[in-house]
Amino acid sequence: MQRFVNDPDYIVDDMVKGFVKAHEDLIVKSDKNDRVVKYKNAPVEGKVGLVTGGGSGHEPAFLGYLGENMMDAVAVGEVFSSPSAQAFYDAFMEVDAGKGVACLFGNYAGDNMNVKMAIRKAKKKGVEVKMVTATDDISSSPKETKEKRHGIAGGVFMWKIGGARAALGGSLDEVIQSAQKAVDATRSICVGLEPCTIPAVGHSNFNIEDGKMEFGIGHHGEPGMQVQKLKPAKEIAAEMTKAVYEDLGLQDGDETAVIVSGLGAAPLMELYVLYDEVERYLKEKGIRIYQTLVGNYVTSLDMNGAALTVMRLDEELKELLDYEARCPGLTIKAK
Amino acid sequence: MQRFVNDPDYIVDDMVKGFVKAHEDLIVKSDKNDRVVKYKNAPVEGKVGLVTGGGSGHEPAFLGYLGENMMDAVAVGEVFSSPSAQAFYDAFMEVDAGKGVACLFGNYAGDNMNVKMAIRKAKKKGVEVKMVTATDDISSSPKETKEKRHGIAGGVFMWKIGGARAALGGSLDEVIQSAQKAVDATRSICVGLEPCTIPAVGHSNFNIEDGKMEFGIGHHGEPGMQVQKLKPAKEIAAEMTKAVYEDLGLQDGDETAVIVSGLGAAPLMELYVLYDEVERYLKEKGIRIYQTLVGNYVTSLDMNGAALTVMRLDEELKELLDYEARCPGLTIKAK
Repeated sequence: MQRFVNDPDYIVDDMVKGFVKAHEDLIVKSDKNDRVVKYKNAPVEGKVGLVTGGGSGHEPAFLGYLGENMMDAVAVGEVFSSPSAQAFYDAFMEVDAGKGVACLFGNYAGDNMNVKMAIRKAKKKGVEVKMVTATDDISSSPKETKEKRHGIAGGVFMWKIGGARAALGGSLDEVIQSAQKAVDATRSICVGLEPCTIPAVGHSNFNIEDGKMEFGIGHHGEPGMQVQKLKPAKEIAAEMTKAVYEDLGLQDGDETAVIVSGLGAAPLMELYVLYDEVERYLKEKGIRIYQTLVGNYVTSLDMNGAALTVMRLDEELKELLDYEARCPGLTIKAK
Repeated sequence: MQRFVNDPDYIVDDMVKGFVKAHEDLIVKSDKNDRVVKYKNAPVEGKVGLVTGGGSGHEPAFLGYLGENMMDAVAVGEVFSSPSAQAFYDAFMEVDAGKGVACLFGNYAGDNMNVKMAIRKAKKKGVEVKMVTATDDISSSPKETKEKRHGIAGGVFMWKIGGARAALGGSLDEVIQSAQKAVDATRSICVGLEPCTIPAVGHSNFNIEDGKMEFGIGHHGEPGMQVQKLKPAKEIAAEMTKAVYEDLGLQDGDETAVIVSGLGAAPLMELYVLYDEVERYLKEKGIRIYQTLVGNYVTSLDMNGAALTVMRLDEELKELLDYEARCPGLTIKAK
């Protein structure tokens, strides 16, 4: 295992320490819980508190989305494991400024269970918390049961939209509504070329044969829709775009925001090669691309692969997307 | 070769197409030369024109540093090869607004030769071009011959500082002076864990044995100072920081800006693990860190490795570093 790591069992602690040090202008560790990191100005007076969280190994998610007009606290889990209910609860308490807390996270069984426990506990303390789960990964469940789908890079849009709505003074219900609108308008798909290795395990827990690829792989190596022959980038990108386009039911004239996110070990050069075809495909269908992000936005340790995320926009989502924000993972500056 | 690529011989064309499409709010292709991409508002009236360029495979460098208060044009080379003299010349012509052009690039033989030819040609057309070369890689030549050193992630500081000085209305000489000041104050070192593969070659042209690492590897796989046993991240980071600290002659009380850049395939999680120790080392020596960047800033295709870059700051460099900027590789928003 050729990795930059100390004791693999403590990689999350080491990473969190580095993260907090690198971004001390924006974030601080909670005094109360080592697995809670918060925006340094949280709780922000008069604003709904925003919390996210999830397993580690997806950097810059989740910590990287803490900051100005973005998340106010993050509950940090072990590699690919949900944070504890206590961490979510402590995160809620750190950011509540009396207007309630919105918890915006990815739809995974462990996270769901722990967030719900934390919400009940917060309620007893008189803090109202509502939640939205990102369900953008179309490969994780068929359309008929899309409420079971997992959240992947689409979370970035949910956080950006929810963060902007809260910053603009939205009530808890309004923040939840906007974040849910972003989720409903967003679909993603991943392709994996090489697996990832959990540092404490030391070898990959799944395999992708040379010359093959996993179309629709999950962010933790969940088996894809199909093992396919590795194809030229153009064909991969077209197939990814088609899948997302159809599932979202995009129509001629729709406006979108697009993310091509690397999964950790895919070079940026190749993400741009993919994007060239994503754009061509969408344009040919009459779809306008209003905003594009290409880079590592939500990753899976050292997995070699890429995710495509598309959000259908309306005027509200465009305004919220453009709203200024500053966090380690994404800075939006007025044009 | 598990990669997202079409015809490997045309990967640069495909990448440039994707890049221009993804960032059409900021950049456009030159009409005159397919291997020149420019800031959409260039030439900017009343401003010194800024050009950079180099081989491809280092994304987001060089294209990603085109934008608002950053570079005005980039000459694009093949993978790991200098752009042509014609591309540099055409880039100069695209951005000259009558105040001259500063060409800020990495110190490699091919780039140097081609830039100098292009400068002579521009002079004949009455366009004054001056140049600064980044020489931050301390492993590429001993201190006694530091003018021979190559430029790596330190280029980011050179571009940011030069870009801000030009945006503030600096003359050509002032832009050159500030960019050179940034170069003189900057040192970098790389560590490689796994090699990279040029897509058109299809296999890596060097090898790093499992359980070993190359301390001081170059951005194109140039052999490092030492092949060492792969160590814990803490030890690697301490050794990298010590090397840069000593070469730069940092002293108790100095202020710095720091970049930990991945080389392409290193997960962000591990870059933060490295940063934890970089910060500890510098702090212990009494060095203040004013600004930190952790991510993929200058890469080497799919190389698994990391670069540490440190710039010593003064009031001028701090002001220029903080100056607002917007480009695909780096957005700086007023605090």
